[in-house]
Amino acid sequence: MALIGGGLGSFIGKIHQMGAALGAGIDLVAGSFSSDPERSRAAGASYGVTTDRCYADHDALFAGEAARDDGIDLVAIATPNHLHLPAALAAIKAGVHIMSDKPATATLAEALDLQAALRQGTSLYALSYSYSGYPMVREARARVAAGEIGTVRKVVVTYQQGWLSAPLEQNNARAAWRTDRSKSGVGGASADIGVHAFHLAEYVSGQRVAELLGDARGLVSGRALDDDCNALLHFDNGASGVLVVSQIAFGERNGLSIQVFGDAGALHWAFDTADVLTMINGDGSTVILRPMSPGLLSSTPLAPGLGNGLIVPFAVLYRDFAAAIGGDMTRIGSVLPGIDEGVRSMRFIERVVDSSANPSGWTTLA
Amino acid sequence: MALIGGGLGSFIGKIHQMGAALGAGIDLVAGSFSSDPERSRAAGASYGVTTDRCYADHDALFAGEAARDDGIDLVAIATPNHLHLPAALAAIKAGVHIMSDKPATATLAEALDLQAALRQGTSLYALSYSYSGYPMVREARARVAAGEIGTVRKVVVTYQQGWLSAPLEQNNARAAWRTDRSKSGVGGASADIGVHAFHLAEYVSGQRVAELLGDARGLVSGRALDDDCNALLHFDNGASGVLVVSQIAFGERNGLSIQVFGDAGALHWAFDTADVLTMINGDGSTVILRPMSPGLLSSTPLAPGLGNGLIVPFAVLYRDFAAAIGGDMTRIGSVLPGIDEGVRSMRFIERVVDSSANPSGWTTLA
Amino acid sequence: MALIGGGLGSFIGKIHQMGAALGAGIDLVAGSFSSDPERSRAAGASYGVTTDRCYADHDALFAGEAARDDGIDLVAIATPNHLHLPAALAAIKAGVHIMSDKPATATLAEALDLQAALRQGTSLYALSYSYSGYPMVREARARVAAGEIGTVRKVVVTYQQGWLSAPLEQNNARAAWRTDRSKSGVGGASADIGVHAFHLAEYVSGQRVAELLGDARGLVSGRALDDDCNALLHFDNGASGVLVVSQIAFGERNGLSIQVFGDAGALHWAFDTADVLTMINGDGSTVILRPMSPGLLSSTPLAPGLGNGLIVPFAVLYRDFAAAIGGDMTRIGSVLPGIDEGVRSMRFIERVVDSSANPSGWTTLA
Amino acid sequence: MALIGGGLGSFIGKIHQMGAALGAGIDLVAGSFSSDPERSRAAGASYGVTTDRCYADHDALFAGEAARDDGIDLVAIATPNHLHLPAALAAIKAGVHIMSDKPATATLAEALDLQAALRQGTSLYALSYSYSGYPMVREARARVAAGEIGTVRKVVVTYQQGWLSAPLEQNNARAAWRTDRSKSGVGGASADIGVHAFHLAEYVSGQRVAELLGDARGLVSGRALDDDCNALLHFDNGASGVLVVSQIAFGERNGLSIQVFGDAGALHWAFDTADVLTMINGDGSTVILRPMSPGLLSSTPLAPGLGNGLIVPFAVLYRDFAAAIGGDMTRIGSVLPGIDEGVRSMRFIERVVDSSANPSGWTTLA
Repeated sequence: MALIGGGLGSFIGKIHQMGAALGAGIDLVAGSFSSDPERSRAAGASYGVTTDRCYADHDALFAGEAARDDGIDLVAIATPNHLHLPAALAAIKAGVHIMSDKPATATLAEALDLQAALRQGTSLYALSYSYSGYPMVREARARVAAGEIGTVRKVVVTYQQGWLSAPLEQNNARAAWRTDRSKSGVGGASADIGVHAFHLAEYVSGQRVAELLGDARGLVSGRALDDDCNALLHFDNGASGVLVVSQIAFGERNGLSIQVFGDAGALHWAFDTADVLTMINGDGSTVILRPMSPGLLSSTPLAPGLGNGLIVPFAVLYRDFAAAIGGDMTRIGSVLPGIDEGVRSMRFIERVVDSSANPSGWTTLA
Repeated sequence: MALIGGGLGSFIGKIHQMGAALGAGIDLVAGSFSSDPERSRAAGASYGVTTDRCYADHDALFAGEAARDDGIDLVAIATPNHLHLPAALAAIKAGVHIMSDKPATATLAEALDLQAALRQGTSLYALSYSYSGYPMVREARARVAAGEIGTVRKVVVTYQQGWLSAPLEQNNARAAWRTDRSKSGVGGASADIGVHAFHLAEYVSGQRVAELLGDARGLVSGRALDDDCNALLHFDNGASGVLVVSQIAFGERNGLSIQVFGDAGALHWAFDTADVLTMINGDGSTVILRPMSPGLLSSTPLAPGLGNGLIVPFAVLYRDFAAAIGGDMTRIGSVLPGIDEGVRSMRFIERVVDSSANPSGWTTLA
Repeated sequence: MALIGGGLGSFIGKIHQMGAALGAGIDLVAGSFSSDPERSRAAGASYGVTTDRCYADHDALFAGEAARDDGIDLVAIATPNHLHLPAALAAIKAGVHIMSDKPATATLAEALDLQAALRQGTSLYALSYSYSGYPMVREARARVAAGEIGTVRKVVVTYQQGWLSAPLEQNNARAAWRTDRSKSGVGGASADIGVHAFHLAEYVSGQRVAELLGDARGLVSGRALDDDCNALLHFDNGASGVLVVSQIAFGERNGLSIQVFGDAGALHWAFDTADVLTMINGDGSTVILRPMSPGLLSSTPLAPGLGNGLIVPFAVLYRDFAAAIGGDMTRIGSVLPGIDEGVRSMRFIERVVDSSANPSGWTTLA
Repeated sequence: MALIGGGLGSFIGKIHQMGAALGAGIDLVAGSFSSDPERSRAAGASYGVTTDRCYADHDALFAGEAARDDGIDLVAIATPNHLHLPAALAAIKAGVHIMSDKPATATLAEALDLQAALRQGTSLYALSYSYSGYPMVREARARVAAGEIGTVRKVVVTYQQGWLSAPLEQNNARAAWRTDRSKSGVGGASADIGVHAFHLAEYVSGQRVAELLGDARGLVSGRALDDDCNALLHFDNGASGVLVVSQIAFGERNGLSIQVFGDAGALHWAFDTADVLTMINGDGSTVILRPMSPGLLSSTPLAPGLGNGLIVPFAVLYRDFAAAIGGDMTRIGSVLPGIDEGVRSMRFIERVVDSSANPSGWTTLA
């Protein structure tokens, strides 16, 4: 496997490396970690990648690896959003499979281009929506799908952070690109974390959002993109939904949670207690589920002692992707998000941003 | 004090009685508990009210009490919503002060009538929004008002119950009147609990809702009124808000919570842990506040050992109302909700219901 | 009902009054609230007791009430510990039933005297161990008794408070009598709250402590009685136990909790979440039980909205006591603690204090 | 780095590997993973260790590595307890530094032998008490040491698991060696998890246990070693303590927690919420601390997103050990447990087991 992005000090790059190793026995052996050759090699060393397989850009990477007998057939993309599309197109051209960080691309138009290119090529494509790899999120999805809470009636999903409460973009690189339209696309919080919430709502409920009333705004003075994004949702089956997203929710670290209410039960999950899933049965009894609980419907996790961090979910995603690459066509688009989910998320961003600017009733997401 | 409503088996009637006794040393000595004279006397006995002061209707009550030297000067109204207005008007005519259960009346028009009548008369009027009597809610309000979280930027308030998930109205009196337009008015969940959430949002944040995007619907087949009601909010000062209300949130008992995020801190309160207030300071530190915590800004509660039930908040409200009756003009309309808050809540119900039926962008609440 | 003790400002007196009214429809109509006649009348007024039934001491109380047609047949004792015995003996002499605050008496010898006197007289006697009236404690007891966790193997009970961390006894009346051997008896924390923990362990587990290794000490310099009291326990059936008690656990308010582990399940309850009982089933699944949960084995509580304060458990105890007075001989000594539990608790105090002073292996509690 | 033990399916082996890489940039390059050469090579492959550096026993390992220019200078020992001593002695002989899993050895006598051998040799020795690597445990230790809770008065430490509730040893390898005296030594639960609790109590409080009253028993019929182990403690400074340990606490997964009460504050930590430390300040206020909280006294963690699993604490321990190897003599014996802590833990096991068999008052731990 190769990595594009994930330069020195990158946290997500290490997670890709550990997740791929743990979940699928795949080693990180190459990469273009930075456009500066020296920095790329330094980053490569931190991953244990030998100097000869540290490249300065993705074109060099695919060319170099194609020339080797043991060249890579899988690439993880962990760059800022606006570089996702060119990296992915290059991978498709090279016939290399793609595990991409979200969002799929910077704009809906790009995502549609990527979807078309993937249909033409042979590369498989997975989107690393990390929350879809959490064992208890999978269990929630499986239980809804098995009808354990009856018909879904209401979904409440929240994702609130506080780190953009202050105008950090002046002197914080991580904040700067996320609030810069040329690097993030049209969405701010909506694109950075709103898509997680949107995807989680559809992923767990098994329903698709049909239309929305949105309110995405930049509440910090001078901010170009939205830092707060809330929406009322109607799902295909008539269920109601509420999506609450913010990066100016002072003091919140990673306040992601979802409640799915059916007509015969309910499920609650929250990131802060990621190893716990609360189920309300049809008789009103409350059951606490954990990775080793009896009667789980989804497959067991890799190693409970690893705690609730990102390694396990990434390992789960890589395990699925390895299975897909191995020929299991049931993974992508179901438990493992693919380009269709990517397109859908980009559509969500554009529609919620557009309709917030021009409010006039419900906006379709079809 | 007299009680109108609160017939046999009433829970809220006992709470009025215990709260008034505990908070203000006021005894319940008369009442029209039921339109059936025998049932009214039986209910009266359960309150320790002597037979001669159990009346069959509120006219008889005010007439009977006016004829006594020790007649009542305060009445609590605990009837179904559509009877609030006539009871309150009779009290005003009799010059008796009013502690009314919410909502103030069945419709906005009625609330405006009541507001006008109160301006003509001498009766004081308080609305028993119980949550405004919880010590930690008061503390939250006081801290926001003191600027401890800076400028309010976002408010998220949820109030979700599950008891109307099934079509109970066929055989449950409590459900029947709440889902019957002739008794509840135009709102279902929006009127029954949505107003609590709406009022709490304004009460704690100190901001007023300027406009909303609403989605109030009946999700249980055949239900005449909304049982799920969500809204996006804009406050006067530009802050964003989300209101999440439901009575079909399967398994939820009384899921009320509020988060207020400022630009220099945040406050979180939830009914399930009513004695706890979580404060995020400007430096990001998290402090847990309880009724006996050091540095509280609001006055201390009556008796911590009473737990988190309704007695303490009702006692607090009665204490305030007794102070108002004693001449303290600062209570009503500030810590103690009055008719203006009642009118505002009725406007919220009508606007959220109307705009849900005819969505076309933001609806003003002015 | 009459009340002995519960003078001006007493909290527990109000709880007796509200609990008796709510649970058994019994009114507080007489009392000797203080040895100062004027203060007794003032306190009586705060309970709504008429002046003619406010007495200066318990002898006057029983004499005065005996002379009335509507004289009391039940008395609640809420005095400091050393006055429990004389008040109870006077009640027995008067043929009046007794609801006594804990501990039963100041010493084991006194408790044995009281036990003997009760055997001679006609008065029924109940001990207001409030925790035995909490609905979820009752549910835990019922489930253990029904074999739902199999054979009990281990019990861990903790009761930690922090209010005696500082040497308050100099200037706090409540602290002064609790740390004064002439008023509290030989035990400090062991007598004040240790007996609650000890009783709860036996009450819920259905097992009796056979022997203990104890460590009761006064850790605050100059304190005459223990303020920290821990013990290892062996139960009759061979189960292990640990009792952790303190009044110098800085910052703890009322840290009472119990865990009962069987060979086929477990139960956890804690005061801070008194309305919740956590059950681990034999298959390892975790279920959260609440007063309205399906499948409860114990009877339902009186009114969930009253919260987790002391009113509901006192109402439950009074309901039981009223049933016992009405002839139901199954209550006292089972769900409702009586004098035998009182004697047992006194024996616990004396043995844990004695064996701490002279440690030499396990001390029997038989 | 080499690994001794950690054969196929080992979880802790992977944790050593990831922790060393993450915390100190140290790669696992050799090992004797199993006494069966083929299984050793297979396990080696799962770690990415080349075949030529997979050895069948530790003698071959040290010999083989000594013969290489790039031979290892650090070994992690992850075998059953009875193999700790021979592996460590061989490492000392080879001049290789040692990171050993706990307990240090199988018996106190062995631990004293190891202590003596280390004094003779040049190898540094660290004991991987994982809990001492958790950032919030370190913070607790730092705050007690800085006097933030005043003088320590009471310590309550619990470590309860339920997995040995059934007599698993018949058919579960992990249970079998832990309940076999020839492999585990004299202690069962006391040695497996009791030492963690004991060490944590001393590590956080900064006090040493002076004497104890213990009760270690096997409660499951036919079990040779203790599966439940409780003790009352007296610390050097006069503080009280309670240690509650069990492996028959039905349903408990990893119920480790510690409370340290001073005369001017308190600290609470629990494994289930490992990223949170609760501090009670001297004024009674409660503060919630997390890895990124303001005002932390201990150094920041490596990567918050890794969650609460074992990787971060092992990385912290390896970071410290690398610093010690690099010459920082302040780490071992303070923040990083060494052989003295190992000896002390073995003494705890022997004393608690002995005194349980022959109870006769307090047993010294000096």
